[in-house]
Amino acid sequence: MKVAVLGATGYAGCELVRLLCRHPDVEIEFASSESHAGKAFHLVNPQFYRAFEMELQPLSVSSIPESVELVFCALPHGRPAGLVPELLDAGKRVIDLSADFRLRDPALYDIWYDRTHPAPELLGKSIYGLPEINREAIAGAALIANPGCFPTSVLLALAPLARKRLVDWDSVVIDAKTGVSGAGRSPRRDLHFPESVENLKAYRVGGHQHTPEMEQLLSSLSGESVTIAFTPHLVPMARGIFCTIYLRLRGAFTRDQLHADYVKFYKSHPFVRVLPPLHFPETKMVRGSNYCDLGLGCDERTGRLVILSAIDNLVKGAAGQAVQNMNIMYGLPEERGLEQLPLC
Amino acid sequence: MKVAVLGATGYAGCELVRLLCRHPDVEIEFASSESHAGKAFHLVNPQFYRAFEMELQPLSVSSIPESVELVFCALPHGRPAGLVPELLDAGKRVIDLSADFRLRDPALYDIWYDRTHPAPELLGKSIYGLPEINREAIAGAALIANPGCFPTSVLLALAPLARKRLVDWDSVVIDAKTGVSGAGRSPRRDLHFPESVENLKAYRVGGHQHTPEMEQLLSSLSGESVTIAFTPHLVPMARGIFCTIYLRLRGAFTRDQLHADYVKFYKSHPFVRVLPPLHFPETKMVRGSNYCDLGLGCDERTGRLVILSAIDNLVKGAAGQAVQNMNIMYGLPEERGLEQLPLC
Amino acid sequence: MKVAVLGATGYAGCELVRLLCRHPDVEIEFASSESHAGKAFHLVNPQFYRAFEMELQPLSVSSIPESVELVFCALPHGRPAGLVPELLDAGKRVIDLSADFRLRDPALYDIWYDRTHPAPELLGKSIYGLPEINREAIAGAALIANPGCFPTSVLLALAPLARKRLVDWDSVVIDAKTGVSGAGRSPRRDLHFPESVENLKAYRVGGHQHTPEMEQLLSSLSGESVTIAFTPHLVPMARGIFCTIYLRLRGAFTRDQLHADYVKFYKSHPFVRVLPPLHFPETKMVRGSNYCDLGLGCDERTGRLVILSAIDNLVKGAAGQAVQNMNIMYGLPEERGLEQLPLC
Amino acid sequence: MKVAVLGATGYAGCELVRLLCRHPDVEIEFASSESHAGKAFHLVNPQFYRAFEMELQPLSVSSIPESVELVFCALPHGRPAGLVPELLDAGKRVIDLSADFRLRDPALYDIWYDRTHPAPELLGKSIYGLPEINREAIAGAALIANPGCFPTSVLLALAPLARKRLVDWDSVVIDAKTGVSGAGRSPRRDLHFPESVENLKAYRVGGHQHTPEMEQLLSSLSGESVTIAFTPHLVPMARGIFCTIYLRLRGAFTRDQLHADYVKFYKSHPFVRVLPPLHFPETKMVRGSNYCDLGLGCDERTGRLVILSAIDNLVKGAAGQAVQNMNIMYGLPEERGLEQLPLC
Repeated sequence: MKVAVLGATGYAGCELVRLLCRHPDVEIEFASSESHAGKAFHLVNPQFYRAFEMELQPLSVSSIPESVELVFCALPHGRPAGLVPELLDAGKRVIDLSADFRLRDPALYDIWYDRTHPAPELLGKSIYGLPEINREAIAGAALIANPGCFPTSVLLALAPLARKRLVDWDSVVIDAKTGVSGAGRSPRRDLHFPESVENLKAYRVGGHQHTPEMEQLLSSLSGESVTIAFTPHLVPMARGIFCTIYLRLRGAFTRDQLHADYVKFYKSHPFVRVLPPLHFPETKMVRGSNYCDLGLGCDERTGRLVILSAIDNLVKGAAGQAVQNMNIMYGLPEERGLEQLPLC
Repeated sequence: MKVAVLGATGYAGCELVRLLCRHPDVEIEFASSESHAGKAFHLVNPQFYRAFEMELQPLSVSSIPESVELVFCALPHGRPAGLVPELLDAGKRVIDLSADFRLRDPALYDIWYDRTHPAPELLGKSIYGLPEINREAIAGAALIANPGCFPTSVLLALAPLARKRLVDWDSVVIDAKTGVSGAGRSPRRDLHFPESVENLKAYRVGGHQHTPEMEQLLSSLSGESVTIAFTPHLVPMARGIFCTIYLRLRGAFTRDQLHADYVKFYKSHPFVRVLPPLHFPETKMVRGSNYCDLGLGCDERTGRLVILSAIDNLVKGAAGQAVQNMNIMYGLPEERGLEQLPLC
Repeated sequence: MKVAVLGATGYAGCELVRLLCRHPDVEIEFASSESHAGKAFHLVNPQFYRAFEMELQPLSVSSIPESVELVFCALPHGRPAGLVPELLDAGKRVIDLSADFRLRDPALYDIWYDRTHPAPELLGKSIYGLPEINREAIAGAALIANPGCFPTSVLLALAPLARKRLVDWDSVVIDAKTGVSGAGRSPRRDLHFPESVENLKAYRVGGHQHTPEMEQLLSSLSGESVTIAFTPHLVPMARGIFCTIYLRLRGAFTRDQLHADYVKFYKSHPFVRVLPPLHFPETKMVRGSNYCDLGLGCDERTGRLVILSAIDNLVKGAAGQAVQNMNIMYGLPEERGLEQLPLC
Repeated sequence: MKVAVLGATGYAGCELVRLLCRHPDVEIEFASSESHAGKAFHLVNPQFYRAFEMELQPLSVSSIPESVELVFCALPHGRPAGLVPELLDAGKRVIDLSADFRLRDPALYDIWYDRTHPAPELLGKSIYGLPEINREAIAGAALIANPGCFPTSVLLALAPLARKRLVDWDSVVIDAKTGVSGAGRSPRRDLHFPESVENLKAYRVGGHQHTPEMEQLLSSLSGESVTIAFTPHLVPMARGIFCTIYLRLRGAFTRDQLHADYVKFYKSHPFVRVLPPLHFPETKMVRGSNYCDLGLGCDERTGRLVILSAIDNLVKGAAGQAVQNMNIMYGLPEERGLEQLPLC
């Protein structure tokens, strides 16, 4: 199968190339980059010497070869909105890693992303590409909205409870921590090495744009109107997301029963690892892999459940999940090309 | 004034030496170390070449020179409990950096520290050394229980609200992040550099031993029986604590009014910096200094206040606060010897 | 093919498991650990949940199943010397990652490792497992001495020149930098995270035990008696070795000609990437992969060649090279199981 | 005394402010920043809340108050060359942290900095501000060329040998390692946190612009025409320079004798710490301080001396040295304002 990667030199794009290069059923036929068009990929990303040396192209739909069936969009938010209609018209299937097609409600998009959506009619047609929830719809989709990194980590942690309507939503507090690659590859003063190292800070307190995406799916899973508190933090590491989710359940529960529910919920999902009771995830244990590790903790004194969730933001939180979606779309085994174990 | 530092080669002990060496009114007359007794201090800690080259002594109360007025105990938890009575009998004043004299209730100590307190009669006599709350009592104290690093960060963030009885305590969630030096200087597999770097994890979920210390002071400040949810995380940096505190207030509030309350509360306290509205703390901005930076955020959608608090765990969270307590005990300016600006 | 991994919970052992788990032609049949015998592998190394959950065994040759053809020894230096004879007698082939069988001359071993070699008769029979030099001998070997991490990086950088007798050996200075995992997984005070981060130091100045191993092969390649200056440094990163090699050549040279020589020398070797002129290696560009990247620099003002060499110390410097040796020993494609691209 | 800091928001500028803020004899009267003019200093650098909240000015000589006696130029290379003549004409003394006035020979400047020097007549009048060598000339200077970070580390390591004409200059190889802050504060793709962490690379192989500055002083000290090999490396830490200097001496030497020579040479210099035999420097041990730590190693097998030198690039390598120069220029104790101990 032949694919294209648009935005191949950003972090998600590079990670897509890393995974697709070694995927036995796929060939990258086209790779674009606005900042590096005309250069060979490996000269911009020297880790790819000998492995992927394709010349980067400027981005234009017409120059994508006809043989390409599937297009991965790893472009900055806002760009795909204008581009995807054209791609679909050209008969391509699309996996978009940006936020442009994740929200159903164009009004929400306008508020949280501070611009008017140029193709609101597509919002109802895209499939939210979280395979553990939407596997069937993904299989037949023409347009996948690949979930954000934080939402992936949070939704996998909450889905089993949401489905069972066990959550007292008003009690939910989500404290998220991300490695710096989550902020993208463009140099920025506060992400300059000497500024980031030995530093930890919160950002977008009470207003991160991934919030509505989480609320949308949690509302849909639970059948309730969900509003959540979400605060992300920047941590001095390159990769990794760790979410600590505090909540109260409606009604009594035991840890063992909850654990059994989680194990059952994810039984047929190879990338979610529900850790044994009293074991908790760590970002390093999923680094470079498509795993999401979940741990269930109890704060018995205050009657709260504490769910801990760890992913690699660039893999399960972006490129790995996109490849997983591709596998499902094309009837391949879900783990194909994603067998790589964590690199500690 | 002549002082002794017991446990001078742990992180808190070293940091005490760093600060006391440059304090104009103090001379270190005695320094003990169990693991390095007999060696010169600077050969164990080469940053002190030429600055502090005293020979380390084994620990025995009788060998502390009579000229020593004040003893800093930077020993592992559990050790000072047996030692402090003897020190007080010998006429020394004591600032104890361990947890041994922080809790009023011996039963709580037994539960959280899993041992029986050997000197429970002293628990009622020690003063909890948080200068921003207990300045007057500290001035006359013979025994200071220097607060834990997490409690310092949390209590300074919550004290103004607790005093005014504004907090819906049942809503409080405290998500704490600490640099690795908070776990002490003894090598440990999970703190080995290659294991810690690029890793983030939670620990003691729902059961960290600093919890009762926070609840005790918050209960005392508010006149209510306070129970809080507290979860610490280990972050790949050497120094720094960052606490994110989520809570709901009783009754309406505006950010500006809250900000004004905080500014007023800390008006006469040189080390607490209440940042301007919309500015938030970062651990690097207090690194190496005795500052505690506070920021007030609002999550308007869920009606929560989000208080952010940053300190250097080894300075305001340990040695710096101890020196601040000493200054108060001896009538010195509170900032004496603590003027050092953050080192970014 | 069935293999055993002795010392599976050290860094090299874990890395072997990571690679062998995904190697299509291999099954790990036995894994030993002295410190964790009786526990399941994934409970000690949680990155392996679902991927490798074998129970760890105490180390005894008799308990290695007969079906095991090949044994990887990832034990501390000194241990394999006593063990390998027994393994060979039991009909196993052995790849030993320690230093025990690398030196031909038992006297050198005694000096540099400060103990008497217990099986000197085997020193003449082991094959030094640097595939780019010894591929043919490796194919038929019963006992492979897998090269040290520094020697791998240095020897690949110097082999083309050594073979041509172009090096003025007296001029050679090798300045090596290694990530902390090179020092092993046992906690140690100076490798404790807060001590290592933001720190760089030299160690074993003028006396690192990898020196004779390099001199032995360089002497053999060049037919001259080679003595080199080698100084390693510890750098605050988990993985990676970077060697900067300064030397003068006998006779004139041009960079282009040297570059062509290197390209030619490594033409049939998939893991050595000779970078284009004016491009230089970086440790991140080989991280997690079996690549060795080489760059050729000139210091024209002082007439020196500056060769730069980067590897991942745990992959090409240890476990990856061991798997490469295994592939050669069993007639498999050299890259089998080692296709993983660098993880930046 | 009143001073001005031009370029106050770069790393060297910020570090100057940190030191000068706490210097008992100095007041900063004027601070400029091109990128942040009009903003308050502490809003750009929040570590300075309450400590230094001056409004940043655009850079113009005429707006520097007359009361200012001394101007610190912490501007990008090339800027001071055009500015300093005007400052001197206005009767100010100047400490310039750039490279603009370090080289005596304008031709060298043109070659290494790739531009024509606009004020070559001043090159003969500036004093190279390495206090351990030029203390007397500094005292009376109007214009100080503050040394580069690498040259400081290298020159202090070599000066005692150079003076005695003991060095076989042809044998000298200098392998330098620097933290990322050495590359300045402007965001740059390769210094973006996720690119720098876990990465080590060489740069400007055989052609770093600090080379002629070192050769100039070494030639002057030794009375010989010195050419040296110098290669810098970028290391994943924020601060710190570590130089490993390999050389052969003319004639025999013993380590003890050399050590005694170094101790004697630096006897009256408070910031150079010659470590005891067999002790070696580490960057962390000087972090945040104005110390330069020196260690002497021997590679007896190849007859080389290995000198190890560590400084904090922003302190002894920039701002701290500038303050030291100021102290000398104004007859203050050399350590005034620089007493801060290393912050590990």
